[in-house]
Amino acid sequence: MASREFARGRRLVARLPYGADLLEAIAAVADEHRVLVGEVRAIGALQRARLAVYDQETREYEEWVLDRPLELVTLLGNVSRRDGQTAVHVHATVSDHGLACFGGHVAPGCVVFACELFLQELTGGEPLERGFDDETGLPLWRNV
Amino acid sequence: MASREFARGRRLVARLPYGADLLEAIAAVADEHRVLVGEVRAIGALQRARLAVYDQETREYEEWVLDRPLELVTLLGNVSRRDGQTAVHVHATVSDHGLACFGGHVAPGCVVFACELFLQELTGGEPLERGFDDETGLPLWRNV
Amino acid sequence: MASREFARGRRLVARLPYGADLLEAIAAVADEHRVLVGEVRAIGALQRARLAVYDQETREYEEWVLDRPLELVTLLGNVSRRDGQTAVHVHATVSDHGLACFGGHVAPGCVVFACELFLQELTGGEPLERGFDDETGLPLWRNV
Repeated sequence: MASREFARGRRLVARLPYGADLLEAIAAVADEHRVLVGEVRAIGALQRARLAVYDQETREYEEWVLDRPLELVTLLGNVSRRDGQTAVHVHATVSDHGLACFGGHVAPGCVVFACELFLQELTGGEPLERGFDDETGLPLWRNV
Repeated sequence: MASREFARGRRLVARLPYGADLLEAIAAVADEHRVLVGEVRAIGALQRARLAVYDQETREYEEWVLDRPLELVTLLGNVSRRDGQTAVHVHATVSDHGLACFGGHVAPGCVVFACELFLQELTGGEPLERGFDDETGLPLWRNV
Repeated sequence: MASREFARGRRLVARLPYGADLLEAIAAVADEHRVLVGEVRAIGALQRARLAVYDQETREYEEWVLDRPLELVTLLGNVSRRDGQTAVHVHATVSDHGLACFGGHVAPGCVVFACELFLQELTGGEPLERGFDDETGLPLWRNV
């Protein structure tokens, strides 16, 4: 099994700014504190969402825009490295009036209304690095 | 970016009592252990749920009652302070026969069937305190 | 309130193998590193899912198979002990083309496409042990 122990680094709490792009804001928190690898969790609300589902046959993400206010019910994921840059990989469930849920891979274009974010840094050893994985067509960790 | 480093405090695990109000039970765990700030995660089942979605225009929560047994698929959120009291802010996804999901902000009136809860205390510096935020109409952290 | 403090153990990150059974792969990570108690979080994608909802009247799990590729939007739960063995208890939300969500208790038969998993070990004191709970009919923690 590909698995590795990390040391715990810093524990950061952030309040993401109104109007920010969700992915960019998470990357900004990581970059500001120079977090290379970490785990991310958040709740809040969005002004609009853009979520994707990976098509395992065509190997492309299909995206859907939800152009309305939404509850950010759960956001879960991680920060690692890809081509020397901060790579934020997070999934979200959002909901609507009536509590109907929509979920997927967070794409650029999710606009923050309010967001309470926890980022747990993981240190020790080589930072997790993403690289192309033949079996799935996804940029998975090549050094876990 | 409004973000702050915290020190890790205690790691608490709780089994919430059958029939308890979900929000009250989480606050009781925090209060019993004198946790001022922390992160919360849980899974379990509910006898009934009351979830809300924030209307970003009228600035009021709209609530829906799901008056039937439900799986508590995910609960994510935090504990901080508001007006000198423990403020539990958690979001949940619940599901039904057929696996249909409903999600939102956890309101008073969710009744526990069974619940396995993790509470990670965060210490160091001034405890996170909620105050009215003009831009959103929400009680957001004023000192993150 | 039944609650207990744990010490933090190791922090493990795993990339679950393509084609593996999700529950078995999580148990394998725990067993390989001899983790007795821990918290689990993951995101990824599945080739198929088998999720359950507990029927609080009949006290049996009802299961549904989603026999198609799915986004693993969130996985949350824990590892503890039952009858001297590793017991993985996790809940998941999955989604589909169109972002529709399905959620429940993860049953055997979820097949991994890709999965990024975090396992936080909890040590100190007697390991959490599951035993039959009369009130719910579920194998809940008897020593939290």
